Amino acid sequence: MYTGPVIDCDIHHDWTSPSDLLPYLSAGWREYVTRSGGRDLIPYIPSEIHPNPGGVFRDDAWPPEGGPPGSSLELMRTQLLDPYRIERGLLTFGAGTYVAAAANPYFAAEVARAANDWSVDRWLGGDDERLYGTVLVANQLPDEAAKEIRRLGGHPRMAAALLATNAIGKPFGHPLFHPIYEAAVEMDLPIAIHAAGESFASMRVSPVGSGVPSLYLEHHTLVPQGLMTHLVSLIVHGVFEKFPTLRVLLMEAGVAWIPAVLWRFDMDYKGLRRETPWLRRHPSEYFYEHVRITTQPLELAPRREQLIELLRLIDAEEILCFSSDYPHWDTDEVSHIAQNLPKDWHAKVFHDNAMDLFGWSGAPAGAGPRLAAESR
Amino acid sequence: MYTGPVIDCDIHHDWTSPSDLLPYLSAGWREYVTRSGGRDLIPYIPSEIHPNPGGVFRDDAWPPEGGPPGSSLELMRTQLLDPYRIERGLLTFGAGTYVAAAANPYFAAEVARAANDWSVDRWLGGDDERLYGTVLVANQLPDEAAKEIRRLGGHPRMAAALLATNAIGKPFGHPLFHPIYEAAVEMDLPIAIHAAGESFASMRVSPVGSGVPSLYLEHHTLVPQGLMTHLVSLIVHGVFEKFPTLRVLLMEAGVAWIPAVLWRFDMDYKGLRRETPWLRRHPSEYFYEHVRITTQPLELAPRREQLIELLRLIDAEEILCFSSDYPHWDTDEVSHIAQNLPKDWHAKVFHDNAMDLFGWSGAPAGAGPRLAAESR
Repeated sequence: MYTGPVIDCDIHHDWTSPSDLLPYLSAGWREYVTRSGGRDLIPYIPSEIHPNPGGVFRDDAWPPEGGPPGSSLELMRTQLLDPYRIERGLLTFGAGTYVAAAANPYFAAEVARAANDWSVDRWLGGDDERLYGTVLVANQLPDEAAKEIRRLGGHPRMAAALLATNAIGKPFGHPLFHPIYEAAVEMDLPIAIHAAGESFASMRVSPVGSGVPSLYLEHHTLVPQGLMTHLVSLIVHGVFEKFPTLRVLLMEAGVAWIPAVLWRFDMDYKGLRRETPWLRRHPSEYFYEHVRITTQPLELAPRREQLIELLRLIDAEEILCFSSDYPHWDTDEVSHIAQNLPKDWHAKVFHDNAMDLFGWSGAPAGAGPRLAAESR
Repeated sequence: MYTGPVIDCDIHHDWTSPSDLLPYLSAGWREYVTRSGGRDLIPYIPSEIHPNPGGVFRDDAWPPEGGPPGSSLELMRTQLLDPYRIERGLLTFGAGTYVAAAANPYFAAEVARAANDWSVDRWLGGDDERLYGTVLVANQLPDEAAKEIRRLGGHPRMAAALLATNAIGKPFGHPLFHPIYEAAVEMDLPIAIHAAGESFASMRVSPVGSGVPSLYLEHHTLVPQGLMTHLVSLIVHGVFEKFPTLRVLLMEAGVAWIPAVLWRFDMDYKGLRRETPWLRRHPSEYFYEHVRITTQPLELAPRREQLIELLRLIDAEEILCFSSDYPHWDTDEVSHIAQNLPKDWHAKVFHDNAMDLFGWSGAPAGAGPRLAAESR
């Protein structure tokens, strides 16, 4: 069992209600969302087309004081930060993750801005110094997204820029998105790409290839496809040649699909590189140098050793970063990951790889109480 | 090196020109496609949005007498059937594969019917008794597709029904497609699902998840996504409970992606089976019982042993069926596959698994000359 400090790369914090954002909206947008007379807010986030019949949250994660799971820091401490020895945790929003699903691009930019201000105010103000933020980006308008990264990227607790949900319908390597990467590099922030954001009624971007699924099980089993697409696209379009210091974290799509994609990608590159003269190395080399990937939900093979055998086929020890995905229904516990990955990987996967990715060193300025106690 | 007989599950035969189909169209449709005065035929097949800058064919496969690669039986014999010791080969059409990309569903049904009659006439009439056919299906109208399977499924050389390209925009497990499976089961034919059919200008079905790629390398690296989608969909929607004798062959998307999909699928099923009360077993059990997969393009790992190690994590020996994909640019040679898979798998992968899938036994009625010679 692993007993060292843990960095959790995917904790979904949330507002208690969309109305929490009202004070952070400009007067004009506040009037816009409330003009029906206060009975209904204009929804910030469109509805999903694949509801999980069991709900998307852990049953035990609903705060007793109301609000959705992820909205109570107190409960997050009790259920996650303290028991899992979280040294640093990356906050990745709840419903806000899907801001790029809004059809109105100006409204989306404003909601992202308000959500970021809310996040800084309510979560990054020193209440718990283990928590780090992500700059939520509405990618409908990449230039506006870049401005938002520059506006907040210098905040001492901002650790990444968060892309989730594809508003443009081109994979994320497409040049239309490059202003976002330019800003991230300028602010020295990794780009975190969160999976599963294309399942919204408002969108015409299919979450998977060759047809739109009907059931949640169908959709959820196929969630890795979106990250495969973005990963391949980023490399094909030469994003890592154009932005050599860019780092990317792929989030919440498991890990077992990586060998198949890298092998096919390198093979295809050899036959098709005429098309991409801007690439100077094999696709897998860009991957290992620039990309890291969160563990959740870690695949379960029929026998535990099989997953490890598969992961040993790539340099998984160097690229995996632990994530709990708290408070979602399929949260991975630290003990579960510790049991399913080799002991000699634990320090890297639970801690060191994320420290490198985010450019952190040493203990955080205000390490949490348990950590502080342990280090005495 | 493997020296036994080979069954090739994916040989793309083609017409020398779309006008080859004219005699097989009804008078009304013949007038429809030629009414511009003969200068331009109405195209049978819409154009692809991801052209391969090197072309999709092997340079050496263009017949000297004209027509596209795959249109000359003579050249096919010289380049494929004889040197590779093909005992039986499955003909899977060239441009015809994409008939489901046509916007007009009535026209598509007619083109499929004409293409099938052309295939029977020109290829399955005894010119080379190693060749077996597939019933091409235009899935725009599943009831019409089912009729076509019933019309020709009893032909002694028809070995499968061929689904390629998704005209409806739902993955192939959706109940809208079930009439096709009902007919296939009735005629005792496997369903062959060919990858990479959603890259057409006319279509609004994305070939991959989370965005439409721009480059061929981007698109081609991600081709397995479509088959993942259909595989998961067929199982989730209970197709193998509804049609317990149905067999499916997945074609032309490589094989290394299988472990990741099966592991995630079984794991997700455990958490989400509330949604699919019609399933009685784990998804992977349906897979092993009902599904086989062609080898081409076999992934290349950095070291040959790595691919084998990955494939040993599943029962790959039992599910892989050799395919050359002749005459495409990335044709896999028999020697290449023999070198990259363990020797003790060869008999199954090159021969026995396909024999079982297609319900064949013994040598074909008219085994080709080399085979006949060898068996003397």
